[in-house]
Amino acid sequence: MSKVIFDMSMSLDGYIRAAAHTPEEPLGQGGERLHQWAGGSDPAGIELLGTAIARAGAFIGGRRTYDDSIRFWGADGPTGVARLPLFIVTHQIPATVPENGVYTFVTDGIESALRQAKEAAAEKDIYVMGGWDVGRQFLRAGLLDQIGLHVVPVLFGGGLRVFDHIGDEHIQLEVASVVDTPPATHLMYNIVK
Amino acid sequence: MSKVIFDMSMSLDGYIRAAAHTPEEPLGQGGERLHQWAGGSDPAGIELLGTAIARAGAFIGGRRTYDDSIRFWGADGPTGVARLPLFIVTHQIPATVPENGVYTFVTDGIESALRQAKEAAAEKDIYVMGGWDVGRQFLRAGLLDQIGLHVVPVLFGGGLRVFDHIGDEHIQLEVASVVDTPPATHLMYNIVK
Repeated sequence: MSKVIFDMSMSLDGYIRAAAHTPEEPLGQGGERLHQWAGGSDPAGIELLGTAIARAGAFIGGRRTYDDSIRFWGADGPTGVARLPLFIVTHQIPATVPENGVYTFVTDGIESALRQAKEAAAEKDIYVMGGWDVGRQFLRAGLLDQIGLHVVPVLFGGGLRVFDHIGDEHIQLEVASVVDTPPATHLMYNIVK
Repeated sequence: MSKVIFDMSMSLDGYIRAAAHTPEEPLGQGGERLHQWAGGSDPAGIELLGTAIARAGAFIGGRRTYDDSIRFWGADGPTGVARLPLFIVTHQIPATVPENGVYTFVTDGIESALRQAKEAAAEKDIYVMGGWDVGRQFLRAGLLDQIGLHVVPVLFGGGLRVFDHIGDEHIQLEVASVVDTPPATHLMYNIVK
């Protein structure tokens, strides 16, 4: 059964981007720290990523995430050789896109993106990879089944917080799994509906 | 060797108090959820608390925490029959205090409170139990050795955040321990100095 998972790396104080971000440092000054766990030097991190990608059927992302990352991703997208489809929620389709890329641009909102991603994923999981705004829209619309957080042992003290402006109704969760590695603590929660 | 530990329960989105707090609900509406793990129904939580109290020699807290909690604590303080000393950082000593209480009121700042707590604790640990403002002062002054967080699986979406206004310098941490229980994930971090 396909699950919809919002999955982010954040600092212990909840930031998914450090302060002072620029085109060269889209994650802010020192923000690359958040993704070190996935960088290949930690065997547990590699295993975790491998398992997630094996279960994943499609990804959904926001336009800023796409713009910030396309020069790293190229045509293959965030999953590299796995080439899983990525649906980008955007107001406008970019003027130039990579040839033979994994990207589909969705201009009619998150529910349409989810519908298309579900079709592409068949029974596999769908990862909402952010940015913040797309993740928040999915959360508020009640479209998520799980929240995955890779909590990195650092306090940023500023930047962009993943859980801001999510509405003031309490959202009950339950712990699905905890994987503890030195570069990050990997928490997976089910959203109680 | 005595450690200075800032220890708090927080929601996954970083709140140590839910929105809409009143004298009757000092932790905000539904905020009691944050302390359920310590309520006695979870054996792992009881064990964790027991170990912490066995290692603790003294506590430091803020005046609002004292005012909010004194009707629950009585003369024995937050550790009940263990009766560990609690040093309250305050501008003014309260007009009435419990007879034979564990409380010492410190009016000359956090460093004085820490000095007195260290003396009382001998070689045992010192817990900075908040509130938020006292914890933040200790963090910014570089007086902490560890941060302990009991992360409760709920999103509050509003309230008082533990890591706000802590300054914008990144503070590097390392994971000391992770204990996963259903009502809370207990994370302990060393502060890298």
